Amino acid sequence: MPDTIPVDSVGLVTPQVAEFNEPLALACGQTLANYQLVYETYGQLNRDASNAVLICHALSGDHHAAGYHTMADRKPGWWDSAIGPGKPIDTNHFFVISLNNLGGCCGSTGPTSINPATGKVWGAKFPMVTVEDWVESQARLADRLGVQQFAAIIGGSLGGMQVLSWSIRYPQRLRAAAIIASAPKLSTQNIAFNEVARQSIRRDPDFFDGDYMDHDTIPTNGLGLARMLGHITYLSDDSMGNKFGRQMRHDQFQYHYDIEFEVESYLRYQGEAFTKRFDANTYMLMTKALDYFDPAADHDHDLAKALAPAQCDFLLVSFTTDWRFSPQRSEEIVNALVKAGKRVSYAKIEAVEGHDAFLFPIPRYMDALRGFLQRVSPVTQENSHA
Amino acid sequence: MPDTIPVDSVGLVTPQVAEFNEPLALACGQTLANYQLVYETYGQLNRDASNAVLICHALSGDHHAAGYHTMADRKPGWWDSAIGPGKPIDTNHFFVISLNNLGGCCGSTGPTSINPATGKVWGAKFPMVTVEDWVESQARLADRLGVQQFAAIIGGSLGGMQVLSWSIRYPQRLRAAAIIASAPKLSTQNIAFNEVARQSIRRDPDFFDGDYMDHDTIPTNGLGLARMLGHITYLSDDSMGNKFGRQMRHDQFQYHYDIEFEVESYLRYQGEAFTKRFDANTYMLMTKALDYFDPAADHDHDLAKALAPAQCDFLLVSFTTDWRFSPQRSEEIVNALVKAGKRVSYAKIEAVEGHDAFLFPIPRYMDALRGFLQRVSPVTQENSHA
Repeated sequence: MPDTIPVDSVGLVTPQVAEFNEPLALACGQTLANYQLVYETYGQLNRDASNAVLICHALSGDHHAAGYHTMADRKPGWWDSAIGPGKPIDTNHFFVISLNNLGGCCGSTGPTSINPATGKVWGAKFPMVTVEDWVESQARLADRLGVQQFAAIIGGSLGGMQVLSWSIRYPQRLRAAAIIASAPKLSTQNIAFNEVARQSIRRDPDFFDGDYMDHDTIPTNGLGLARMLGHITYLSDDSMGNKFGRQMRHDQFQYHYDIEFEVESYLRYQGEAFTKRFDANTYMLMTKALDYFDPAADHDHDLAKALAPAQCDFLLVSFTTDWRFSPQRSEEIVNALVKAGKRVSYAKIEAVEGHDAFLFPIPRYMDALRGFLQRVSPVTQENSHA
Repeated sequence: MPDTIPVDSVGLVTPQVAEFNEPLALACGQTLANYQLVYETYGQLNRDASNAVLICHALSGDHHAAGYHTMADRKPGWWDSAIGPGKPIDTNHFFVISLNNLGGCCGSTGPTSINPATGKVWGAKFPMVTVEDWVESQARLADRLGVQQFAAIIGGSLGGMQVLSWSIRYPQRLRAAAIIASAPKLSTQNIAFNEVARQSIRRDPDFFDGDYMDHDTIPTNGLGLARMLGHITYLSDDSMGNKFGRQMRHDQFQYHYDIEFEVESYLRYQGEAFTKRFDANTYMLMTKALDYFDPAADHDHDLAKALAPAQCDFLLVSFTTDWRFSPQRSEEIVNALVKAGKRVSYAKIEAVEGHDAFLFPIPRYMDALRGFLQRVSPVTQENSHA
């Protein structure tokens, strides 16, 4: 809880809701007759609407990227370190839009919403959504907010996939794309981990094939397990080692299945905490969106061909100890962009934090983001023309 | 099923059972009043009992390391590629002993055995066993078989930990130690993966706190999950990629939670098959034995100090794509041995198979093992004295 709002914070923010009544045809073949997206904005849209930045969230993210909802909030939004007045995504210059994606569980239409056709909770019947579906819904939100072209679209991990998709599908609608700790498609191992996470959830008897809300329960065991596993893949071996090592709970081993090592306690806590804030069906959907994403698939598996339409400037960022989406995966995108003749900068950042590093204000990373965005900021452009 | 037994096979083998009635005091504080060990032997013990080799198995291994039990067997023992006449662990020269460890589920006393004190299945009440307990029980088996000193003790992964422990606890009882794809202790990440595996099992309602046999059931969902997860960590990202890539089950995505990618099918199959051959309580015990192992802990966390008593020759082997026990982990042992002034050879083997590589007959690996064992073979020693 902040006693006072820090000067470099966007301050108190209020989520807003946009209702859409134009049907949205999804990649899976189903159509959503209507839906809503919850979003926040930080900073002011300038007169010619040229300073908008879109933030795309990752697997378990939401629209609350910066600032505080109330003075009682224990923590600010999930990317508060990067978004604010004077911060790399500088709200003195940019109008930042951050939304909860379709299928989410934080206010946008998703499995926990009411299906208007039945008057019941969607649950497992909510249609599968893809990265491309999200881009489509985000484009409609941009229309609604009067943004024809974004100064930049930015995202880490699954968020980076949305940015990549934007650059291909709507090349005219963004001047810059920042793709952080991401990949052009999941590896076999990535899919395998996702499948284990999904099986953890599906095998929980409280999952009821996704209709757990009808049974007034939650698959806490399975969702907790999925999160424990996910959590390991977000951290590096080194960062877990630095944090916990082989630190024991007791002076001596107890030779039981309760906590012997502190890391066990940490993981259980992380798993349990997640079940209190996240919906299992949404988690399932998000992992599938990751699995499906593969923009090169329709272009002879040649990412450079898929990227041919792109017109924006690209910044790619990777982190040395990230083994979920290793630097090599970012470099696949860099190489394809180079091959396709696009403008691309690439920063491989020394970081101990693993995949999670994209959420940390690591100086060289923040500098790279700041420098890249300054180049596309309308203010800077005016100055450079002066 | 072999139509004929290959000439370099140890042929048909029959497991034997050794009963022990001297109580065994375990590290956990409990004592086993009596127990049995099931084992196989290949080759002949020579007159002065100087050619015995002990094989220590890994997490889900057993005593059936080589040859066939019947002509109807679909596959030979788990390390048949390395053990046999003319093979690296050459049964023309060596008398090879391979046992199922205490706490196992393949014939040695473990959770599926009857507790003589109660007349009921041990189940979850079977005491926790450690690597050191195994070494103790293996030493007793050696006594029983008339082996005072092993020519070599060999093991991969958790088996390598047993070898390391032998070299410290019974320095006089082995001339050579081959430690393959192993580590001097688990990393935080290793423990974390084990904890997720255990939680998978414990959260299965069919686990009944380990007393599932009393309820005439098996925690197939949880044990299967644990194995799926384990399996990912045994393979390298590359080997999974080479094997399955993003190979789809259907021509087009079905946008459902059934199999979309072949790797999902493979993992589910691996998980399910495992539940038919392995006991969940044993799996829990084995992961705990891994967690607890840390011979340096009682020596100011200085492995070189812990290794001071060792007298044998060491061979360490690691595999380039093994990320469960990476080459760096083997090198920690190598460095400690060097620091302690011991004789050590080290082979880091190029291999795509990840941790599983230790089960494959990779030529350079097999050559390293063969060369090392030839140096300690009594036959070779006699020749070299001639």
